[in-house]
Amino acid sequence: MTEMPLYEAMSTLRAVRRLRPDPIPEDVLHRVLEAATWAPTGGNVQAWRVVVVRDRDKMAALGALYATRWAAYTQHYRGLMEGQPQEAIDRSERTLAAGDHLAEHFDSLPALLVFCFNPRNMAITDSEQDRPSVVGGGSIYPSVQNALLAARAEGLGCVLTTLLCQEEPSVRALLEIPDPWYTAAAVPLGYPIGGGHGPIRRRPPEQMAYADSWGSAYGK
Amino acid sequence: MTEMPLYEAMSTLRAVRRLRPDPIPEDVLHRVLEAATWAPTGGNVQAWRVVVVRDRDKMAALGALYATRWAAYTQHYRGLMEGQPQEAIDRSERTLAAGDHLAEHFDSLPALLVFCFNPRNMAITDSEQDRPSVVGGGSIYPSVQNALLAARAEGLGCVLTTLLCQEEPSVRALLEIPDPWYTAAAVPLGYPIGGGHGPIRRRPPEQMAYADSWGSAYGK
Repeated sequence: MTEMPLYEAMSTLRAVRRLRPDPIPEDVLHRVLEAATWAPTGGNVQAWRVVVVRDRDKMAALGALYATRWAAYTQHYRGLMEGQPQEAIDRSERTLAAGDHLAEHFDSLPALLVFCFNPRNMAITDSEQDRPSVVGGGSIYPSVQNALLAARAEGLGCVLTTLLCQEEPSVRALLEIPDPWYTAAAVPLGYPIGGGHGPIRRRPPEQMAYADSWGSAYGK
Repeated sequence: MTEMPLYEAMSTLRAVRRLRPDPIPEDVLHRVLEAATWAPTGGNVQAWRVVVVRDRDKMAALGALYATRWAAYTQHYRGLMEGQPQEAIDRSERTLAAGDHLAEHFDSLPALLVFCFNPRNMAITDSEQDRPSVVGGGSIYPSVQNALLAARAEGLGCVLTTLLCQEEPSVRALLEIPDPWYTAAAVPLGYPIGGGHGPIRRRPPEQMAYADSWGSAYGK
């Protein structure tokens, strides 16, 4: 079992989309799932579940759904890239190429974690606001993040995807997900083909945090 | 700087609601914020920001808003507890007492992290589904979870709260949050009065995961 320090895991967690078909040992997968269970949820209700997909026929069916949505997404995304600096375009093209690889090899993934949730067991405190609700996610994505961090520590490639939510009725039918449970994320898992996790590119706290008022500089 | 192992941090992250007013060193707070920046976001857009509240007048105003909502929440929650086993009621009452303490001492918190998001820079893939949307949260709560885990590793008490979303217009006015930015979570931070983090109570993977189909037992 890994003793990777927390900050090392967090600061080297990349979106890894080129994954080998080799199976994941049961004890490794169990640790990833246990890490997910440790995350906080509203009222400690744990109103999420995860379907661990390894069945080859189901993976192929999910892959076909994913590929269609990925193609539409990349077309939209390339439109947004027009006029960007070449460096940014090159970086985006590398990400898209890795995403193409995932879409083309989805059927050979060793495991896919489909995170589900029950909104009736959640206190969705922003449901009355005149903007998209997000608070239900506060009882789901901490668990997803824990699973990603555990996967990273275990040497497994992984990536948080939500495109399959656009195909939710089909995904629910395929995995026999009953009312009132819905899907929030799908996380492909597998050992990386290339370097896997490593350095990440993020804005620093000085660009993400404000002091007491919006726009007021936060400094160390 | 802490070298706490990932699994130790995750498995001992509690909701800590009894916090001391003692200030948090700048370098500790900076590490918590940096951990938040490391989390994944859709398209790596990082369409979230955080307002770090330490101003005493603003904290008191936020505390007054929080206390009103907390009182309503506990009334509702106690109604749900009726008829539960005594052990469950006792556990809930301990949680509510800690929550009462937080609400009563909100104005003396050394820091509050108000996480904000911009839905226009997010691909909210479940916006067309006939149920509450959560996917926007997929680009916010991984960062919140990273901040909580970092706080835990640094010995800081913390808890993910979303009650202030019910008072979003007032919170936005107070912290001068402009359109199109909204609030997703508020995380009180401070050194614990009591034992702070420690053992947690969660359902195991065998109760949270299914194999290939909903309801199909997942086992180690």
